[in-house]
Amino acid sequence: MSNRKVAGPEIERLIQLLAKLPGLGPRSARRAALHLIKKKDQLLEPLAEAMGVAVETIGVCATCGNIDTSDPCTICADPRREEATIVVVEDVSDLWALERAAAINARYHVLGGTLSPLDGIGPEDLTIDSLVERVKVGDVVEIILAVNATVEGQTTAHYVTDQLAGLDVKISRLAHGVPVGGELDYLDEGTLTAAMRSRTPF
Amino acid sequence: MSNRKVAGPEIERLIQLLAKLPGLGPRSARRAALHLIKKKDQLLEPLAEAMGVAVETIGVCATCGNIDTSDPCTICADPRREEATIVVVEDVSDLWALERAAAINARYHVLGGTLSPLDGIGPEDLTIDSLVERVKVGDVVEIILAVNATVEGQTTAHYVTDQLAGLDVKISRLAHGVPVGGELDYLDEGTLTAAMRSRTPF
Repeated sequence: MSNRKVAGPEIERLIQLLAKLPGLGPRSARRAALHLIKKKDQLLEPLAEAMGVAVETIGVCATCGNIDTSDPCTICADPRREEATIVVVEDVSDLWALERAAAINARYHVLGGTLSPLDGIGPEDLTIDSLVERVKVGDVVEIILAVNATVEGQTTAHYVTDQLAGLDVKISRLAHGVPVGGELDYLDEGTLTAAMRSRTPF
Repeated sequence: MSNRKVAGPEIERLIQLLAKLPGLGPRSARRAALHLIKKKDQLLEPLAEAMGVAVETIGVCATCGNIDTSDPCTICADPRREEATIVVVEDVSDLWALERAAAINARYHVLGGTLSPLDGIGPEDLTIDSLVERVKVGDVVEIILAVNATVEGQTTAHYVTDQLAGLDVKISRLAHGVPVGGELDYLDEGTLTAAMRSRTPF
């Protein structure tokens, strides 16, 4: 909007807040706001309510760091989940990704990021202590380090492994290799070398 | 999410509603939801409140069809706006675009779409009657048809012109031409021909 007064401040505020969502810029936030206003009954009102409910109910699971409306979270409280296996992830979005894939029927532990000295993120900013605690008091047989295959992710994985040293638990990590459906021509050399090294009988 | 229960239904509902926003798909809606939840105090709560306020306060201006928190809207109520000129636009988003450009200091009339027999949109679905009424009762000197330069927009412009025939009002439309900053090489032939025809002294 220009400096001329075009509409009440409520609309401008809605646009400004929408523009803070990832994936929306100032232009698409305006489009989204207009869409919401036009679909007041079908979209704006339900969304306002759903957000209000989220504000009231959503919190962090004290056990695993997952985000949910109950504490312990739905996964930690689910008796059908294997208690013996804990999948360690960086972020809740990684937990969601693994759950979408239904990759494993285990419990999780959300670290809340990766070690990054440059950004001032040390071990005390992650939930590493509570992971060690879970391993000490529970019947955990295996820890699967499902961190990103980045330098930060791998550094964090090594640190977590060090902290768990001496405890009676098996530590594994996700396999490196060719993505399913991936074309060799488009893959980096690191991935190709890793896939070659970890080749399996056909 | 898979069919396994991963989190409370409140989160899933939030994601589903966010996915209905233009510019957000299922994947980016999940990312947006997580971002909102993580920034509960700074973003989720203010946005929920802003939406609630919007639900309560925003409506359509009975005079011009603009969307605002007051009726008559801020523009219709502004005494510094020229009353003699009405800019006819298809949608509120076009009004916003013209206001961002501060293209003119006039009033507006939002048609609410374009004539489209195939989609079952006839004159009675647009605010053409109320535009004619505004011209009849007010001191309107000029109607500027600022509709899109599409077939539907131009068809609608012709229809509106027909409805205003016989009334003492000047009707004009936006100029066709080369966009400011535009390169000739990338422009379509229709635009180039129009720009050539409407050439101005240098």
